[in-house]
Amino acid sequence: MTPTTPATPTGTLPAPDRIPADALRDVVDGRWIDVRRETREQLAAAGVLADPDASSEEYRARITEALKILTASGRPHSGFARSVGGRGDVGGVVTAFAMLAYGDLSLLVKAGVQWGLFGGAVQVLGTAGHHERYLRRIIDGELLGCFAMTETGHGSDVQHLHTTATYDRASGEFVVHTPYPQARKEYIGNAARDGRMAVVFAQLVTDAGTHGVHAFLVPIRDSDGHPAPGVTIGDDGRKAGLNGVDNGRLSFDRVRIPRENLLNRFADVAEDGSYSSPIENETARFFTMLGTLVRGRISVAGGAGGATQKALALAVRFGERRRQFSNPSTGEEIAVLDYLAHQRKLLPALATTFALHFTQEDLVARMHDIQAPGSGPVGAREQRTLEQSAAGIKAIATWHATQTIQTCREACGGAGYLEENLLPALKADTDVFTTFEGDNTVLLQLLAKELLSDYGRTIRKGNPLQIAPLLGRQLAGVLAERTGLASAARRLPLRGLDLTDRERRRTLLRVRRDDTLAAAIRNLAPAMRRGNDEFTVFNANQDLLLTAARAHVDTLVEGSFAEALDRIDDAGVRALLERVYDLHVLGVIDRERAWYLETGRLTAAESRSLRPLVNDLCRELRPYARTLVDAFGIPENLLACPMLDDEAWAPAPGAPAEPVTGSVETG
Amino acid sequence: MTPTTPATPTGTLPAPDRIPADALRDVVDGRWIDVRRETREQLAAAGVLADPDASSEEYRARITEALKILTASGRPHSGFARSVGGRGDVGGVVTAFAMLAYGDLSLLVKAGVQWGLFGGAVQVLGTAGHHERYLRRIIDGELLGCFAMTETGHGSDVQHLHTTATYDRASGEFVVHTPYPQARKEYIGNAARDGRMAVVFAQLVTDAGTHGVHAFLVPIRDSDGHPAPGVTIGDDGRKAGLNGVDNGRLSFDRVRIPRENLLNRFADVAEDGSYSSPIENETARFFTMLGTLVRGRISVAGGAGGATQKALALAVRFGERRRQFSNPSTGEEIAVLDYLAHQRKLLPALATTFALHFTQEDLVARMHDIQAPGSGPVGAREQRTLEQSAAGIKAIATWHATQTIQTCREACGGAGYLEENLLPALKADTDVFTTFEGDNTVLLQLLAKELLSDYGRTIRKGNPLQIAPLLGRQLAGVLAERTGLASAARRLPLRGLDLTDRERRRTLLRVRRDDTLAAAIRNLAPAMRRGNDEFTVFNANQDLLLTAARAHVDTLVEGSFAEALDRIDDAGVRALLERVYDLHVLGVIDRERAWYLETGRLTAAESRSLRPLVNDLCRELRPYARTLVDAFGIPENLLACPMLDDEAWAPAPGAPAEPVTGSVETG
Repeated sequence: MTPTTPATPTGTLPAPDRIPADALRDVVDGRWIDVRRETREQLAAAGVLADPDASSEEYRARITEALKILTASGRPHSGFARSVGGRGDVGGVVTAFAMLAYGDLSLLVKAGVQWGLFGGAVQVLGTAGHHERYLRRIIDGELLGCFAMTETGHGSDVQHLHTTATYDRASGEFVVHTPYPQARKEYIGNAARDGRMAVVFAQLVTDAGTHGVHAFLVPIRDSDGHPAPGVTIGDDGRKAGLNGVDNGRLSFDRVRIPRENLLNRFADVAEDGSYSSPIENETARFFTMLGTLVRGRISVAGGAGGATQKALALAVRFGERRRQFSNPSTGEEIAVLDYLAHQRKLLPALATTFALHFTQEDLVARMHDIQAPGSGPVGAREQRTLEQSAAGIKAIATWHATQTIQTCREACGGAGYLEENLLPALKADTDVFTTFEGDNTVLLQLLAKELLSDYGRTIRKGNPLQIAPLLGRQLAGVLAERTGLASAARRLPLRGLDLTDRERRRTLLRVRRDDTLAAAIRNLAPAMRRGNDEFTVFNANQDLLLTAARAHVDTLVEGSFAEALDRIDDAGVRALLERVYDLHVLGVIDRERAWYLETGRLTAAESRSLRPLVNDLCRELRPYARTLVDAFGIPENLLACPMLDDEAWAPAPGAPAEPVTGSVETG
Repeated sequence: MTPTTPATPTGTLPAPDRIPADALRDVVDGRWIDVRRETREQLAAAGVLADPDASSEEYRARITEALKILTASGRPHSGFARSVGGRGDVGGVVTAFAMLAYGDLSLLVKAGVQWGLFGGAVQVLGTAGHHERYLRRIIDGELLGCFAMTETGHGSDVQHLHTTATYDRASGEFVVHTPYPQARKEYIGNAARDGRMAVVFAQLVTDAGTHGVHAFLVPIRDSDGHPAPGVTIGDDGRKAGLNGVDNGRLSFDRVRIPRENLLNRFADVAEDGSYSSPIENETARFFTMLGTLVRGRISVAGGAGGATQKALALAVRFGERRRQFSNPSTGEEIAVLDYLAHQRKLLPALATTFALHFTQEDLVARMHDIQAPGSGPVGAREQRTLEQSAAGIKAIATWHATQTIQTCREACGGAGYLEENLLPALKADTDVFTTFEGDNTVLLQLLAKELLSDYGRTIRKGNPLQIAPLLGRQLAGVLAERTGLASAARRLPLRGLDLTDRERRRTLLRVRRDDTLAAAIRNLAPAMRRGNDEFTVFNANQDLLLTAARAHVDTLVEGSFAEALDRIDDAGVRALLERVYDLHVLGVIDRERAWYLETGRLTAAESRSLRPLVNDLCRELRPYARTLVDAFGIPENLLACPMLDDEAWAPAPGAPAEPVTGSVETG
């Protein structure tokens, strides 16, 4: 669906106190408004925040307790199928999950491991027997478990992990084995302390040979909490953050499990050892299994968004009250948020945070509509597009979180470095989001290759590596024309239009998406034709591929924000969020203006005009900064901290605002 | 001094094993080679690394012990004057200090507080009486103390802090007072646990009025460690990092100190209460006092450099052994450092780290030559230039550290998130460097205003605010011409020369330095003429000012690197470091290529050629990455960590390199 481009603004914004806060929040709350309201109340009531000087053991114990409180809320249940006591509200549970980022991110990750990864794998990779036997206990938090995929030696390339599960026909069991130290399972949440069972990803081996990676249910601790026979459990120890989560290492020394412990939705091994699967190709089978786990990436992107919103709420509030240096003309000290440099640090980041919020909403809705009960058969293309979007948005959202939270920390100076002011935990806890559930660089590369594939499919069935050698520079251009990739650029005169024109700005983003992909193809094709090996060719153009992927995500984000604007009824709210949209889009074009200049899409004068345009928007939005961060509806008790304590900021009664000639009072 | 521009490279590099490692390290070690060698041995012998799960109290106790070991080494003494038992080796002590970053950064900061800030203030702001009475005990670590400048309400604008020290003529004492909560001293190292005395910065008040900020020696604890009467000590609690340092808060309730406790090198109060100072202007006096403290900023930049070097050493070693995904042509797994995207993450950052290392060497040498005993009277211009450089380089070096360490963490994936692998502490501990000893944004703004001043001085004595209104757009251009600012651009044809030409690249950096400053002046001048107030005018152009400051630092860094190349004898070492220099300089031009395009300094084709040039250099330097990080000479015991443990990486004897069809062994 192509949303209407927001009209170029003509009117002026209502004053900040004329913006209806409730209407603004409802827009931000979106489709799962009821879930958000309920979760907000639960968070306000619970208000669990970590003790920053707790030992890892104390912190882990506390988070395990918090998991029980979360279970009691009934929220984790709602995402599972009705058959096991759930409500099938996939979108709602992911929305509520992301809001846990307003509180303690260790709890968010622990919940994600238990219900998203462990429970999710049993649900989507298992069949009825597994569901009946385990799922209720998993949902009720009675059976805590792990998702054991990553190995010390294989993180990104999980298709080639080295743990084996070999079928022993004589006993009707699988034998799970860690062949050498680098093959141990690593960074596994719930492993070091609480988990009783793990979904273990291993190469399935039968007498007939290896069938690729499959998932197995492996008990790792007995009922007393001791490691099961043959299982060695290590502790990852202290981490940069998330120390309320018990990450650990699992090694298996020929651990025997019943044949039925294979999660057999996509493949099975019969008693006689014969292997069967509805998906013949091993790689296709593996990626089908992985695809069902897309919820993890979407959830991480959501959590990153929640943490970013909280960091900005803290920094904007601080920036309004913190004053430094006097205005020489008035003698009054200036709030740091009135400095242009401070606005340029926080406001474009805030605009992009809104953009990513609406993008996340769309992503969750698309996932919900595919995965929720009764949604019918999933089209391969629909599923693939969802996975592509999830990969790209996860990468961009988590990098945005890391950069923005760092900026917010710096914007609060020394206060931002104290744990009591909440920013250090936000920063340390979300850092790993950039590399877990898929390393961001690997995800963007994956997206780029998918985009090449899609491009190839418009010509003929086949993969882009087969297509690429056929494409010369000119042919690529022709194809681009035929498939509409280059058409937007031709239809609209890109130069000469005012950069305040929203249609032109949107076109600029789309042209960049199409042209960067075309450039990658033009570079790949002749090199492949010359008979270079695939790695060398792709590697030499890796930066172009990553650029194309990023440009693709930029258009997704713009599109989601534009669609959200379309849904707004209140004129004042719409006018405000249109300005936020403008700042986001101009920020993207400003960031990439070298590319636009190099390709002649912007003139030098236009490029130079971006700086004052961004500055003007920063100045215009400055009075609305507090209104905007308040729209996220982060419970006040989760923002309360000494640096924002009103009493600490008020001078003592009668205290001078400026140093005065003091008199010496004795006694 | 203008160094020779390195000649454009013509030959090929020697093979990595033909680069003489010792000669390379000697180049890196530079002027204080003996200090570096000795410190390296001391660090290797001590090898104190923090226990990441220690409580703050345990960690603090351990660092206080480590301070004693450092005292015993005699190293801290060497920076002080000979008269108090030192060696006057200002440069040596700052060099050794920065190397502490290879070990535990809490120890670095604790040492910096004790000897650099507290001891340094007593030495440079006090007079003979203070030196005799306190300095030896400070140097020997018997009297631990604080540097109490920042207040909760005033960090950057320390000229307007609110603590008062009012002279009481009746008793001949100063009365130190915190008038309201926001005026308490904040983030003060050594305050929460160990400090017995503090250098307190306060507004000096006599019967005649306020004389501005001065420094006073105030006892804060008695010999039993209890707070002194009238002194309230708070604890800043857990911080994002540096938890071995006991940061705290100090409030004073009319605390009386003898008149002699005023550090009276630049101003004094006689017994009768009359105030005198050789520097009449209050602001000039304040900045003269601050100027003597320049060593703090230079030390922070050095510490940031040490931490960055260590992070890169860890990430490069990991990148050489970590393998992900097979090369489809060979079936062999590829080391992640062989991926172009990974090279682009680490190698330009490594090149800039070398550039900043040589810049830091120069800065330390300039400071040494000004401050060391027997260096003669300091020219105002020389001192001012040193302060400008220190401000700009501190900002750039600490931001580079934060970004690079983050990149290194991500480049090591999950392993980089575990405390056992050292990167989390490097990241958390150095984060605050961007905002302490001067917030980076404020420092760059300070530098920009200084550059405007210098520009104004070339026309007539006066400050730039008086000059600016006189300058129209055209006049500014004429002035730029007359003062040589624009001349470099005119002399050399900027277009048409190959970007591999070093002279042209250097000119590009200088032109940007000059033109961005001229652009700021052109924007400021007409606005001032129109009668706008000073804050509004400067604020509207704050981003231009920051750009000009950054461009100025870019030329300082290039210049220092080029000078260092000039000093290299060994041809192989020189060839290697020339490539590193190329990558750094091309990286700067690439980062700023939008500006070069906007101003017509680069053509679109030239701009597009930067990407392949940077890629080629990355590929060329890839085999030398390990050689380069080894050149920093970081002791092996401080790099040892599980992710680099050789035994953990070797497959177990007989273990398969690839998954095989497993046989089930029983028992």
